[in-house]
Amino acid sequence: MINQKRLKRLAGELQKLGWDAIYLGPSTDLEYIGGLDTHPDERVRGLMVSKDARCFAMTPLLYKEEMVKAFGDVPFYAEWNDHEGFVDAFRRGCEHLGIVGAKIAFNDGVRAIDMLAIRDAMDMEMCNGGKALDPLRSRKDEEELALMREASRMVDEVVRKLHGFIRPGMTERQIAKKIPEFFEEAGSDDISFNPIVASGPNGSMPHYGGDQRVIEENDAIILDLGGRYKSYCSDTTRTFFVGTPTEEQKKVYEIVRLAQAAGEAAVRPGVTGQDVDRAARKVIVDAGYGDFFFNRVGHGIGLAVHESPYIIEGNDKPLEPGNVFSVEPGIYLPGKFGVRIENLVAVRPDGTGEALNHFPRDIESVRIR
Amino acid sequence: MINQKRLKRLAGELQKLGWDAIYLGPSTDLEYIGGLDTHPDERVRGLMVSKDARCFAMTPLLYKEEMVKAFGDVPFYAEWNDHEGFVDAFRRGCEHLGIVGAKIAFNDGVRAIDMLAIRDAMDMEMCNGGKALDPLRSRKDEEELALMREASRMVDEVVRKLHGFIRPGMTERQIAKKIPEFFEEAGSDDISFNPIVASGPNGSMPHYGGDQRVIEENDAIILDLGGRYKSYCSDTTRTFFVGTPTEEQKKVYEIVRLAQAAGEAAVRPGVTGQDVDRAARKVIVDAGYGDFFFNRVGHGIGLAVHESPYIIEGNDKPLEPGNVFSVEPGIYLPGKFGVRIENLVAVRPDGTGEALNHFPRDIESVRIR
Repeated sequence: MINQKRLKRLAGELQKLGWDAIYLGPSTDLEYIGGLDTHPDERVRGLMVSKDARCFAMTPLLYKEEMVKAFGDVPFYAEWNDHEGFVDAFRRGCEHLGIVGAKIAFNDGVRAIDMLAIRDAMDMEMCNGGKALDPLRSRKDEEELALMREASRMVDEVVRKLHGFIRPGMTERQIAKKIPEFFEEAGSDDISFNPIVASGPNGSMPHYGGDQRVIEENDAIILDLGGRYKSYCSDTTRTFFVGTPTEEQKKVYEIVRLAQAAGEAAVRPGVTGQDVDRAARKVIVDAGYGDFFFNRVGHGIGLAVHESPYIIEGNDKPLEPGNVFSVEPGIYLPGKFGVRIENLVAVRPDGTGEALNHFPRDIESVRIR
Repeated sequence: MINQKRLKRLAGELQKLGWDAIYLGPSTDLEYIGGLDTHPDERVRGLMVSKDARCFAMTPLLYKEEMVKAFGDVPFYAEWNDHEGFVDAFRRGCEHLGIVGAKIAFNDGVRAIDMLAIRDAMDMEMCNGGKALDPLRSRKDEEELALMREASRMVDEVVRKLHGFIRPGMTERQIAKKIPEFFEEAGSDDISFNPIVASGPNGSMPHYGGDQRVIEENDAIILDLGGRYKSYCSDTTRTFFVGTPTEEQKKVYEIVRLAQAAGEAAVRPGVTGQDVDRAARKVIVDAGYGDFFFNRVGHGIGLAVHESPYIIEGNDKPLEPGNVFSVEPGIYLPGKFGVRIENLVAVRPDGTGEALNHFPRDIESVRIR
């Protein structure tokens, strides 16, 4: 069902922004407002919300039954058949709401080509609605936080099982394939992203996507994984060491561990995403490894794996109670190995941080013997 | 590596269309031209190709190593760091190619919000590049056709195993979870889409996404599934009957079977996608079930599960040798059951159709006893 309370808050945001309406394509925004969890494809579907909190649903007939089941009582279903194309239905919906020629925002579930097809067929002012729902979604309520704690408890359980499972001689792929199984055993509905299993020199690519390498003695293995529980995502990273870490591995690990802890500890009343980024980054830069940590320290998380607030240089907006984000510094040494440690942190009502992940981070606990 | 032959053909298409360049975001277009298989997210990356066959690569530093590995020798990597945002890098790339202010197309791997961010920061004329690569991609060469035959052989093997596996008392979910396993056993790299297992009344929703129902005696079960083999997709549907089908099930099945066969048989020199749609649809309409078949008869397939040519009313372009598409009519009876049968068909050099799927379609073969 469409969440009427959230719909009204969104309409209020539109008024503040001076927009007449926002069109939400398949996305976590759409799930947040309308309860519909679906993926974008060429059958354009979604929900238009006007600044007076009215709406219409773009409805390919092929999806009608599912959409009515999800949305419930939407006053206007702008329906279309495969052979007609979606543009006429979109215009009919806009006519119904009286927003032809108006200033319409589009969210991140809309493809550029579909927006251009609409622009070519009707008068409107297009604007970037990518962040319109951030103020709503980034402040999780108690119910949402409870789901995220539970999702994080499950991913910690998966990490614990991986620690018992991984042995030299396995391929990265064997490990990656086990992860969805462990999530299911832990009670998760699904994985929230394809897990990263980056061993040895592959660990120097923060978003490594391969899977063929065989785990060897003395490997560092980055395991970055997350599941979904009642639509909410978990996301954690641990770096395991097979056997006894080398002196260089130990040194780099300790720097990343301290950087991660410094990031978590920086979450206090009034600090910004940028402050947290700087706190973690400073440890790495001061240790002389600044050139080997070239990405942001973290990202918000909730219905989406990546959402507001971003923990990054330039984000000078104070963190707010209910924000949930990752703190995940790393050091990536090309041709050698990588280390990353990641916990999710929720901002408490008093402005301090609550870590949602609890698998230990000391080097003895991440050794595989 | 960037496929230089395809790059030059694309530049030729741009000249025909009167466009100065096309920007390809993460998509099967990008895989086709640049060999990079990746998914869109907020880290904007892709390839700009100009009408004189020059290019630049949008490169978040986080992905640089992987992108260089995929693309190889691209003259200009427009690099950007998380904290800078991507827009400046995009402008630098356009300056390098001399296309600031030019007419730039965007493909279906670009999000509307990212295109709008670019529009807000630099001068250009945006146009819809959704179909620019269709003339290239829809005509598969012999190497591509060989991969698609092999992918289809694998999915037929999966259907055969499912026929032996499904029993009353299982949930849809248990069946759906078995499918990736069977694909792996058959030698596929992955599934090409989340399989549909729609039993009993759930079968009336052509794109049903649930999974909780328990299979019962006398169910019709729609199984729509596909795998990926060396990046190329398979896609087939069979409807199984548990026990002895009812008279109504038998009648509806026979109509769909004849409609599907009529669609396949209609593939002859000079016919259009619309002709094939009409040939299959006519059988269903003539039998009095026209109101219960409300979507297109088929879609092209290749690197993407859905691509050109579409088998649909309004597509009056003659089919061409090397086209590969689905023929998948169905009848969907709300509250009762659904039936769909789907084979892929490739157009031979002489204009006739070659079915790529071979699991039998007669009603005895789809009974589960």
